[in-house]
Amino acid sequence: MNLRLVLKVTGKTLMVGAISMLIPMLVSLLYREDPTPFLITIPLMMVAGFLLSLLKSDDHFFPREGFCAVALIWLLMGAFGALPFYFSGYFPSYIDCFFEAVSGFTTTGSSILTAVEPLPYGILFWRSFTHWLGGMGVLILTIALLPSLGARTLHLMKAESPGPVVSKLVPKSSQSSKILYGIYCGLTIIQVLCLRLAGMPWFDSIVNSFATAGTGGFAIKNSSIAAYGSPAIEIIITIFMLLFSVNFSLYFLILCGKVRQALRSDELRFFLAVVAVSILLITINISSLYDTLGESIRHAAFQVGTVISTTGFASTDFNLWPEFSRVLLVLLMFIGACAGSTGGAIKCSRVLILLRCIRREIRQVIHPRAVNVVKLDGRVLDETSLRSVHIFFAAYMLITMTATLLISVDNYSFGTTFTAVVACIGNIGPGLELVGPMGNFSIFSGFSKLVLSLCMIIGRLEILPILVLFSGNAWKRS
Amino acid sequence: MNLRLVLKVTGKTLMVGAISMLIPMLVSLLYREDPTPFLITIPLMMVAGFLLSLLKSDDHFFPREGFCAVALIWLLMGAFGALPFYFSGYFPSYIDCFFEAVSGFTTTGSSILTAVEPLPYGILFWRSFTHWLGGMGVLILTIALLPSLGARTLHLMKAESPGPVVSKLVPKSSQSSKILYGIYCGLTIIQVLCLRLAGMPWFDSIVNSFATAGTGGFAIKNSSIAAYGSPAIEIIITIFMLLFSVNFSLYFLILCGKVRQALRSDELRFFLAVVAVSILLITINISSLYDTLGESIRHAAFQVGTVISTTGFASTDFNLWPEFSRVLLVLLMFIGACAGSTGGAIKCSRVLILLRCIRREIRQVIHPRAVNVVKLDGRVLDETSLRSVHIFFAAYMLITMTATLLISVDNYSFGTTFTAVVACIGNIGPGLELVGPMGNFSIFSGFSKLVLSLCMIIGRLEILPILVLFSGNAWKRS
Repeated sequence: MNLRLVLKVTGKTLMVGAISMLIPMLVSLLYREDPTPFLITIPLMMVAGFLLSLLKSDDHFFPREGFCAVALIWLLMGAFGALPFYFSGYFPSYIDCFFEAVSGFTTTGSSILTAVEPLPYGILFWRSFTHWLGGMGVLILTIALLPSLGARTLHLMKAESPGPVVSKLVPKSSQSSKILYGIYCGLTIIQVLCLRLAGMPWFDSIVNSFATAGTGGFAIKNSSIAAYGSPAIEIIITIFMLLFSVNFSLYFLILCGKVRQALRSDELRFFLAVVAVSILLITINISSLYDTLGESIRHAAFQVGTVISTTGFASTDFNLWPEFSRVLLVLLMFIGACAGSTGGAIKCSRVLILLRCIRREIRQVIHPRAVNVVKLDGRVLDETSLRSVHIFFAAYMLITMTATLLISVDNYSFGTTFTAVVACIGNIGPGLELVGPMGNFSIFSGFSKLVLSLCMIIGRLEILPILVLFSGNAWKRS
Repeated sequence: MNLRLVLKVTGKTLMVGAISMLIPMLVSLLYREDPTPFLITIPLMMVAGFLLSLLKSDDHFFPREGFCAVALIWLLMGAFGALPFYFSGYFPSYIDCFFEAVSGFTTTGSSILTAVEPLPYGILFWRSFTHWLGGMGVLILTIALLPSLGARTLHLMKAESPGPVVSKLVPKSSQSSKILYGIYCGLTIIQVLCLRLAGMPWFDSIVNSFATAGTGGFAIKNSSIAAYGSPAIEIIITIFMLLFSVNFSLYFLILCGKVRQALRSDELRFFLAVVAVSILLITINISSLYDTLGESIRHAAFQVGTVISTTGFASTDFNLWPEFSRVLLVLLMFIGACAGSTGGAIKCSRVLILLRCIRREIRQVIHPRAVNVVKLDGRVLDETSLRSVHIFFAAYMLITMTATLLISVDNYSFGTTFTAVVACIGNIGPGLELVGPMGNFSIFSGFSKLVLSLCMIIGRLEILPILVLFSGNAWKRS
């Protein structure tokens, strides 16, 4: 293991992180607030990053270095990103700050705050900005960095799907990544403008767009988006949550004029079908709770959008809905968004592939001599790709179960304990019962908060990096 | 699809089922009860079976015929096995009877009865005898019948593990199946004698041994085994529950004098390790609830044994235990017993293989050029075997989730809804909250009871047969 190289790359990323913190500091100054939390953190992070970046090392980057660097970067970004929260004095302990920062960067949106409105603007801005940075980072990782590290076993989906192929290691030098960031920024700006037009104040429009773009879900009102009481705002956010759940390479295709090819994507069709059926079923299930059919549809669509995109905003308390709607939302928490988006969880393409693998197995029994293959977008998937989908699914479920066991020491109900883990590993935000949309994660012990923080990073980095980092084998000299 | 052959085999099995019903009828007569429920059912079942067995057909048995026949047999055994319950007048509706019979044959042990003690002896005997037949039937089907149908993709575990290899289609002609039934009967008889010696009445000893041997869990007391208030009985049953969870081919090895080879089984070691660690953790977790350490260990061991063996007896109400113990028991519900035993759920060997596959994936990242294989009992498992383990796991989890959604229409809590499905598909019996050890399944609607009945059969037949039966493709003429 080339530890020096791992630390060097980590150091450089920390420096970028420190520079990005200048923006919330400016917001602090703009609102005439005390900028001390940022004034302490930025130099600390800068110096730590600079010292690490000085390490001498060759540039031999093997998969294991890539996985370890990625895992370390996200852990340290959480650790340093937590400092402004800590120094602000609004958070009970450092572990709470770490949880909140990891929840931000991983675009989870689970919060330990019982009330967010008392926070200063600078801190609120930083909190939502972590979502946007995290979403950006995810795009770097999933579309630019990881495939080039030979991570086909992890990210087969990107390798298989049409779209830009990146061959350079450093994402910033990649032309196609720039286009993807362009799309990301462009969509964010359009959303800000739409929200402003719908009557939302500028500050709120910006931070809520950050949270939507990263499919994060931190709101700056205690009752999330419900606080604005505006159907127009809810509809705008629903649309953008769904837009940010789509594979970004499809937008690239559309920009290149290949609209028909983009719309033929199996994953997109599966995603839209799941969304449509879920909205329909929930609308029927909750229709007696709301005055008009329109209101039922709007709330159903918002909640389906917020959960499947793994954002986690709330327009109403779905924890009070009938059990059928609640369970359906929990299932959507497992499915998640499309691969190559800023959303999390298992991803539609993997679920689709699993379903097709099961169908193949049934067909194999019925026609033992027939050649059975699993296809996606008309292309045959090789067995290695299928295997990595299966491994991902198995690891995802086993980690979910193990984490549920670990945090059950806090002795909350099964619904609370299980959905807290599902919401964290899937980077959604709220779960059911005590961690429902109007609840929060402050109830958990420090140990459970650490476990849940790790779940968020594991989910965000698609499992393997964290397992590799904590594997003893990775640290042996070769 | 050779439908005639499927129906012919089904008919023959129904006739065997009708004959086996003579025994509970004799018990009825012995206790001077009304034998009418059996007097009506036996001729009905016999005639139906006889008519089906008259069908002319060639003997070309392909996997799809095998899978369909197995699925149909279990559905019809449930349907006919429910009739004595129905005619007894002690059950609210036919759906309840069907649920109870399926729960019996699949060795699940979930009951819709709020009280079992008012039932006549004959009905109680039949109820427990279905467990014993079901456990036996599973052995027939899985070890004797299916491998000969080319079912390697479904039953790779048996194909991979050391032990008797059966090549004949008809189980009764198979020498090695006979040996396995010999072990099954022998162990049952030993347990009856042990329980009798510990002071349990003859009738109770016999029916409780049936329920233990099949890892079923129907008791004849409202508070299950706790009703006897005897530590000795609880310890005996704990030991036998664990004995019936072990791959029966290991007993065959031991009978052949190959004790060392049997003890080297990876799956056995994994099973024992999980049992030991779970007992230790639960003992610590519940120690404050009981007077002595011995009592804590006894209750922990009984509940771990009852859940991992997928039996479902109760010596205490684990629903009242701290959440950590409850969640640990739910995880054990997923793991289940060893392959080739009468126990259900995912099976230890599959869980072990999944863990080793994940470890291989991590190693692949760290040493990309190394040859990584997954071994069991020192033998390399081929990719087809691994694939079928993955498919099994994925299908198991997806069916669990879908069934949870379906029965959530009854609007019970998440804990009740989810664990009801887990307990049924894993053939365990009790879950948590309303379906805990002292609760029952009477609360569910007829629709949910049918869904749960199907889950029990899907779990018992290891998923694929039912999917093949309900697949439109299977019914096309080829």
